[in-house]
Amino acid sequence: VAATANYLPETSYSALPDIHKQLGDQDAVVTLEKTPITEDTLTELFSGSTLSSHAQNDVYSTYRLQPPPHLNEMKVTVVCPATEEHLKKHQYQESYLVEETAEDYSSITLPYIESQSFSLQWVYNILEKKAEAERIVYEDPDPDVGFVLLPDRKWNQKQVDDLNLIAIVHQKGIRSIRGLTAEHLPLLKNVFQKGKEAIMKKYELPASKLRVYLHYQPSYYHLHVHFTMLGYVISGCGVEKAHLLGDVIQNLQSNPDYYKSHTLSFPLKAEDGLLTKFREAGKI
Amino acid sequence: VAATANYLPETSYSALPDIHKQLGDQDAVVTLEKTPITEDTLTELFSGSTLSSHAQNDVYSTYRLQPPPHLNEMKVTVVCPATEEHLKKHQYQESYLVEETAEDYSSITLPYIESQSFSLQWVYNILEKKAEAERIVYEDPDPDVGFVLLPDRKWNQKQVDDLNLIAIVHQKGIRSIRGLTAEHLPLLKNVFQKGKEAIMKKYELPASKLRVYLHYQPSYYHLHVHFTMLGYVISGCGVEKAHLLGDVIQNLQSNPDYYKSHTLSFPLKAEDGLLTKFREAGKI
Repeated sequence: VAATANYLPETSYSALPDIHKQLGDQDAVVTLEKTPITEDTLTELFSGSTLSSHAQNDVYSTYRLQPPPHLNEMKVTVVCPATEEHLKKHQYQESYLVEETAEDYSSITLPYIESQSFSLQWVYNILEKKAEAERIVYEDPDPDVGFVLLPDRKWNQKQVDDLNLIAIVHQKGIRSIRGLTAEHLPLLKNVFQKGKEAIMKKYELPASKLRVYLHYQPSYYHLHVHFTMLGYVISGCGVEKAHLLGDVIQNLQSNPDYYKSHTLSFPLKAEDGLLTKFREAGKI
Repeated sequence: VAATANYLPETSYSALPDIHKQLGDQDAVVTLEKTPITEDTLTELFSGSTLSSHAQNDVYSTYRLQPPPHLNEMKVTVVCPATEEHLKKHQYQESYLVEETAEDYSSITLPYIESQSFSLQWVYNILEKKAEAERIVYEDPDPDVGFVLLPDRKWNQKQVDDLNLIAIVHQKGIRSIRGLTAEHLPLLKNVFQKGKEAIMKKYELPASKLRVYLHYQPSYYHLHVHFTMLGYVISGCGVEKAHLLGDVIQNLQSNPDYYKSHTLSFPLKAEDGLLTKFREAGKI
């Protein structure tokens, strides 16, 4: 709900004498945000503002409004001195959409994933109850179609409005939706059905309030499914990255090789090594 | 990225003489939005603003900034006279996910759409240059595969960070993706290709920065395609409602009846008449 400008041009700092004094020569993160409109200011906002007409068509029209400054503040957040971690966390990285053909997957993506040997030890720790066992909401222990359901770390579990759980399958070796064929239908249907039932039981949320999906590319290459609250808008549920589990099941039912043969689009951040590989191959 | 106040208290209208005159005694939807901060205004923003300290803790501090009005405009959108549909659409309501089979579409959704006879006059006004002609960014006038590309009303066009354009096809009678078959592939490919080219030419944004998709259900039943900036997170780009044009083209290529035969999921708001129909049919 806030517009953020993460890059302040160097020159801007000096226009801010108070902040500039605090910063000195130190590294800093300066964030500028607009804040939500509050209802109790609306009457004053309109009466004290300048209005100009912009465009009109049929019943639709738009205006530009210049509110008085005290009713339209912005928020400035400063981290100073900022550590390397602060700088990284706040650095905005551009994303680029990649269109990965089945051939690109074999020749670019899969070799890249294999070369990285991302550790999945933390996932195995969860599946084997060596870590986070107390966080598990539900488990089906079947080695072929079973899974563990637990809250995503991003969710504080204080309200269901931003409900966010992850089902991690017990079966090893399925890296992502690219690895799915019709033989995985029993597994996928089981996760879909029992995951929804477990959430209904524990949080009293029916299936019609859930968005159930997989990411491609996922953040780790062991098959897992996201269960989030419908209406809770987060970047990971965008159509460019998320695949509804219901669609995945249907696509595999009508075409067992759907995910082995189709071109899949996904965003990659500027510094992602995989983007470099696609660039080197002249694909972007 | 915008804070929206959908409910203006009654008293607010009278504080807006220009709008009030337009509204009279008619029903209206008045929406107030903040717009993204643009980088080129930052230096002036800081030098011309009043700054006050707010809080400080360790390396973290926050300030309140009161920018000059001309650098911190809001946007007012008015729909007047507003129909019952407009009023419902803008009220905050819970959403529910519906899983619509092909059979549900024929027996529930299509009869409902036909019974509503939503007016498409404003769309035809655009296609026929009777309104908003000056806003058109690009046009391919071909009656079969042509389209008009213009900025979405939500976009103020001041920065590409929240770029949002709509391609409206010239061909009439295609209500939504449910109406698409392989015969529409030339139309879809043309919109995809020429839309991307026009955006590259006008805004210098390559295809890898764009999210190109259709909504199901759409907000109006004349085929149109959304072109938005990748990384700009808005509710309408969620996987539960958006369908990437690239995926739609591929799905139709491998299965001409994909959208006539598959089950499609989409969210409906609590007061949507279509949700009532699905409820009455015992489907939710």
